Amino acid sequence: MQKAPVNAIYAQSGGVTSVINASACGVIETARRHPQHIGTVLAGFNGILGVLREELIDTQYETPETIAALRQTPGGAFGSSRYVLRSPQRDPAAYARLIEVFKAHNIGYFFYNGGNGSADTCEKIAHISRDMGYPIQAIHIPKTIDNDIVGTDCCPGFGSVAKYVATATRETGHDIASMASSSTKVFIMEVMGRNAGWIAAASALAQRTPSEPPHIILFPEVAFNPDTFVSAVQHAVSAHGYCCVVASEGVCDSQGRFISASDNVDSAGDHQLGGVAPKLAQLVVSKTGLKTHYAVADYLQRAARHMASATDVEQAYQVGVHAVEAAIRGVNGAMVSIVRDSDVPYQWHCQTIGLEGIATRERKLPADFISSDGMHITTQARRYLQPLILGEDFGSYDDTGLPAYADLVKVMAKQHCPPWQPAD
Amino acid sequence: MQKAPVNAIYAQSGGVTSVINASACGVIETARRHPQHIGTVLAGFNGILGVLREELIDTQYETPETIAALRQTPGGAFGSSRYVLRSPQRDPAAYARLIEVFKAHNIGYFFYNGGNGSADTCEKIAHISRDMGYPIQAIHIPKTIDNDIVGTDCCPGFGSVAKYVATATRETGHDIASMASSSTKVFIMEVMGRNAGWIAAASALAQRTPSEPPHIILFPEVAFNPDTFVSAVQHAVSAHGYCCVVASEGVCDSQGRFISASDNVDSAGDHQLGGVAPKLAQLVVSKTGLKTHYAVADYLQRAARHMASATDVEQAYQVGVHAVEAAIRGVNGAMVSIVRDSDVPYQWHCQTIGLEGIATRERKLPADFISSDGMHITTQARRYLQPLILGEDFGSYDDTGLPAYADLVKVMAKQHCPPWQPAD
Repeated sequence: MQKAPVNAIYAQSGGVTSVINASACGVIETARRHPQHIGTVLAGFNGILGVLREELIDTQYETPETIAALRQTPGGAFGSSRYVLRSPQRDPAAYARLIEVFKAHNIGYFFYNGGNGSADTCEKIAHISRDMGYPIQAIHIPKTIDNDIVGTDCCPGFGSVAKYVATATRETGHDIASMASSSTKVFIMEVMGRNAGWIAAASALAQRTPSEPPHIILFPEVAFNPDTFVSAVQHAVSAHGYCCVVASEGVCDSQGRFISASDNVDSAGDHQLGGVAPKLAQLVVSKTGLKTHYAVADYLQRAARHMASATDVEQAYQVGVHAVEAAIRGVNGAMVSIVRDSDVPYQWHCQTIGLEGIATRERKLPADFISSDGMHITTQARRYLQPLILGEDFGSYDDTGLPAYADLVKVMAKQHCPPWQPAD
Repeated sequence: MQKAPVNAIYAQSGGVTSVINASACGVIETARRHPQHIGTVLAGFNGILGVLREELIDTQYETPETIAALRQTPGGAFGSSRYVLRSPQRDPAAYARLIEVFKAHNIGYFFYNGGNGSADTCEKIAHISRDMGYPIQAIHIPKTIDNDIVGTDCCPGFGSVAKYVATATRETGHDIASMASSSTKVFIMEVMGRNAGWIAAASALAQRTPSEPPHIILFPEVAFNPDTFVSAVQHAVSAHGYCCVVASEGVCDSQGRFISASDNVDSAGDHQLGGVAPKLAQLVVSKTGLKTHYAVADYLQRAARHMASATDVEQAYQVGVHAVEAAIRGVNGAMVSIVRDSDVPYQWHCQTIGLEGIATRERKLPADFISSDGMHITTQARRYLQPLILGEDFGSYDDTGLPAYADLVKVMAKQHCPPWQPAD
């Protein structure tokens, strides 16, 4: 006997990407095709916080055109959150609260769109069904520019950052090459990647021959040696007339300390990064006297929906589609993963895998993806990375010459529960 | 009596743009349509230095497809230079050398593609005809992302940076808005513009209502007041939940000192900028404790050919076309300027104007383009800026998913002169 339609909650978690809303689009469009299973999709306003606060955007009031436009809208359209749910043992009230909200809105499906941290939360919520008797199916939809989730060929969001960074490397390389005889000879571009060097690695796709940028890539996985670095810069300037460096924000010294110049610490106690490039530029200027420029790409890279990888957009959309279809089939406590079937042509499909052990493992660059000098990538890495940036998805533009995004009406679902009282 | 065909020199000068090669394309394609006037176009390898060194790329060996591809290639395809020619009084040997090279290659036309500095040089070269008896026609083709050349509606190169910066403002604004409830609340994007705030001003095009980014714009034209700035940041965070700031690299304090953190000085004795955003971020964090991120766009903005303004690309191309046509008509010592015929729809045409006084004047933001609080733009500014970013010209992509550029064969013209001996 088929159960009566229930509602779904969709929530975005952690750092957003330029294509996370393509996953939201996939979830909502697919849910709308299955009204016999899913009534409406309620989106957590500011992620899991919106669920706890019973601040839920009822997406049934959004037109099909608005939902379709999510596919080309960067950022988290419903709001994301870095709030971390503690374990049911440490904060049982939070889980009781979730069940309270779930019951009030007849929620049967929970789709959590995030990275490693949200995989952990999603697994805990999946256990509510078993441990607390409330029938909920929780599915994790992977998303992170960091590409550091295990169990999937890649993470939606990464391919577009990779394409942006590789493009910027090629573009700025042409700029610097043309000026180097009388101006800037060294350019350092800082990219994201606190613990894993995937984004920095992707810059290498811009390089067709070793004389082309990037000449040096600095990874978090390789201890930074100032002398080796400065020598490599000088060598590149001698050989090519200029040197382009791409540096991960998470580059560390041999003691594992971030070399970032920033001493800011955020509320979670993490060092706020984003000062590697100025530090490296200072080092190059002081040791070589070469005219040096730097860029800190920061959110420019993460939000650059205007030049998304078509492959990435489609994967982001399909993991959303697949999550809903899996939920309807009865899956719980799973992540949608992308499986690579072939490199050339790039072929892939989605499947679901169990969430056990996903959250606790972080996928770094494999050793055989890093060249022997520690400052570039190997052929294997190139073979892996290349297909992820294929195809251009520029989105559409409005009549002012700027990207057009979804303008959600954001009708909030009526509240039925008392206000949320956080444990502390 | 029509004179026999002579050759032309084309040279790029100063900081490059994402569309300077579109002007090169306009020059070369137009010259090829007039073989009765122009034999071949020789391009200075690294700008005027290539002319002095007799390092000239003979563009007749480039295919029509390669020349056409220049239209979508960022950087200076023939190499640019910051080398500044002194006056004929101070360095007569340099002008004698130019005539020597001109004679050796039968040069009758000199097209100089650059900013204010190159307008000055172009004017000096134009006087060779009158003062030194060598028949040369020198035409200046304007180019600068800074938009600071007088006598033209706008400068080719600016519209594309303006479009990039406005797009990045809208994109990153969506990113930050979606995370602000639990993460970054203040984002500072540093853009180029040492003396004039045109680029920073263009970010305002992203804003449809005052609640949208950018909330604060800092111009070189307005003395920076830390207290006023921090108050404005706090006000925006209170009102909107987050604050997006766009800051010109050239922001100065009330004594006219750059607030940039960088103390690097380049070989010309200029302070190398590019440290405003970290400095502002530090100020915000120390005064408010708000989580703050910053980006330094640097060359990312100047090289971003992947999202050029179609209007800008066409203007860059047409100033090249017009320069050649004017030269054939006998014009000397002129700049091609863009004349605005109407705002909506944007209509414009090219004309030539005399070079006298162009180089010595720098066009800053007019006072009535800056809002009364000094931190945003006015309706007049928006009316001026809006058409310059209209239309998208993405260029084409290769089969690796990256922008495809002109691959010049760069055949050097045979050298006839003795090596150049600079005066000092």
